[in-house]
Amino acid sequence: MRLLRRAAALRTLATPNQEATMSTVQGKVTLLSAGPGDLDLLTLRAAKALAAADVLLVDDLANADIVTLAKHARVIRVGKRGGCKSTPQAFIQRLMQRYAKKGLHVVRVKGGDALLFGRAGEEIAALREAHIPVDIVNGVSSGFAAAAGLGISLTHRDHCQGVTFVTAHMQDHSQPDWAALAATGTTLAIYMGMSRIASLTAALLDALPANTPAAVVQNAGSHEERRLVTTLDRLADEALAAGLGSPAVILIGGAIGEAAEFAARTDDTRSLAHAA
Amino acid sequence: MRLLRRAAALRTLATPNQEATMSTVQGKVTLLSAGPGDLDLLTLRAAKALAAADVLLVDDLANADIVTLAKHARVIRVGKRGGCKSTPQAFIQRLMQRYAKKGLHVVRVKGGDALLFGRAGEEIAALREAHIPVDIVNGVSSGFAAAAGLGISLTHRDHCQGVTFVTAHMQDHSQPDWAALAATGTTLAIYMGMSRIASLTAALLDALPANTPAAVVQNAGSHEERRLVTTLDRLADEALAAGLGSPAVILIGGAIGEAAEFAARTDDTRSLAHAA
Repeated sequence: MRLLRRAAALRTLATPNQEATMSTVQGKVTLLSAGPGDLDLLTLRAAKALAAADVLLVDDLANADIVTLAKHARVIRVGKRGGCKSTPQAFIQRLMQRYAKKGLHVVRVKGGDALLFGRAGEEIAALREAHIPVDIVNGVSSGFAAAAGLGISLTHRDHCQGVTFVTAHMQDHSQPDWAALAATGTTLAIYMGMSRIASLTAALLDALPANTPAAVVQNAGSHEERRLVTTLDRLADEALAAGLGSPAVILIGGAIGEAAEFAARTDDTRSLAHAA
Repeated sequence: MRLLRRAAALRTLATPNQEATMSTVQGKVTLLSAGPGDLDLLTLRAAKALAAADVLLVDDLANADIVTLAKHARVIRVGKRGGCKSTPQAFIQRLMQRYAKKGLHVVRVKGGDALLFGRAGEEIAALREAHIPVDIVNGVSSGFAAAAGLGISLTHRDHCQGVTFVTAHMQDHSQPDWAALAATGTTLAIYMGMSRIASLTAALLDALPANTPAAVVQNAGSHEERRLVTTLDRLADEALAAGLGSPAVILIGGAIGEAAEFAARTDDTRSLAHAA
């Protein structure tokens, strides 16, 4: 029955009859968190949603192999590297709505957890305005995978009472208030910070000791994961020297000092580990 | 071959021969994130680790049905409700080490993500000191599930540049620096705060407007999920009136105002939704 309805909905892509479609088939959009990289970090619920998808809109940051889990879906790659024009966000929102209004199950795949720095807020608002049901499937954000790669808790209670996830890439191109963030005493997990790592570490050094433990984890949670563990004052130079770049998470705070690499490190040896 | 080795290891529980065991079988501990509630929010990697577990140590906060995914494991329930004496943490650490040293695969199950407020830091340090290999399997933390339940991004970019996960339950029984946390402008996701919701909202009201959007999500990500969406000045009273209690996440900040319940709310109606 479900397959019949879906087949009917797919036919309407070619011969649109919106009123009939809307009355018999209710489309929807699932905002799906693809996790940080390796496909086995998807949730069971995400795998089910992918298997049931009619249309897949796949983000740059998600593992490209995720399409293998969506056997029946038409796959559309979106995002800045996907060949879209200058307004990819508006384009993606139009695509989601168009297919959902045909009665199809649209799965919008986002890297990490969809609810952290993914512009999900704007997508949810637009879908709600268009009266299209939205499901959200959570996942593992790359900051958690970075901590797992380092073998540390984000919030070791000897060091801090929490963790702040912050993006260095702000809507108005300003910088976050690094002094205020440092004043919380929480571990800082900085996303999208690699292009301004020198300026952000300089700003943090006004508020935090030079020897504050610090790390960069590139491609956290994937087979290409690379890790650098050092101190705040050396972080930018060493990340540059090691050729680390986006996508990466920068971690700063006492809890990072629990990393085995940090404990083992001396002034003459630096740790740049590739995941096994 | 693997089964034979495991059988040999299990025999040594009764007739210990530690040298022989250590030379042929390498035990390990997996710190496994059980996610916020429903079992399908486990990752695929977590499901695989559970299926391969010899011994399962299950936390209070994890879904009790998780044992159904660990068919071959001896299950040990740990935690304060599990009948342990006054030092459950030390007891748990001894158990993990004892079984791992027998060559067994010990899976330590923690609610949410193991690396956030789970005392994983101490467990990892103790296992490392004992030269026992540790794996970490990430999962979905309840703060993300709470946002999914509310249908919001944690970091809608019109409202904030990040989110801070903080525990209200500190090691030395003091309060976090609520003024410093509020000054970041990030969404606050407060764990273990229900027993002091009146004092923490009072402290936050010194730094944030009374009409700051605020929510409580109890049992986030499970079939028993309950949600309250209101403003900071009313949060404590309304949570009490609604009978909301632990385990719950308290969310505070502009981004929470994107919740449909908040938008729909007037001064005369309050939203307390049960999950479908």
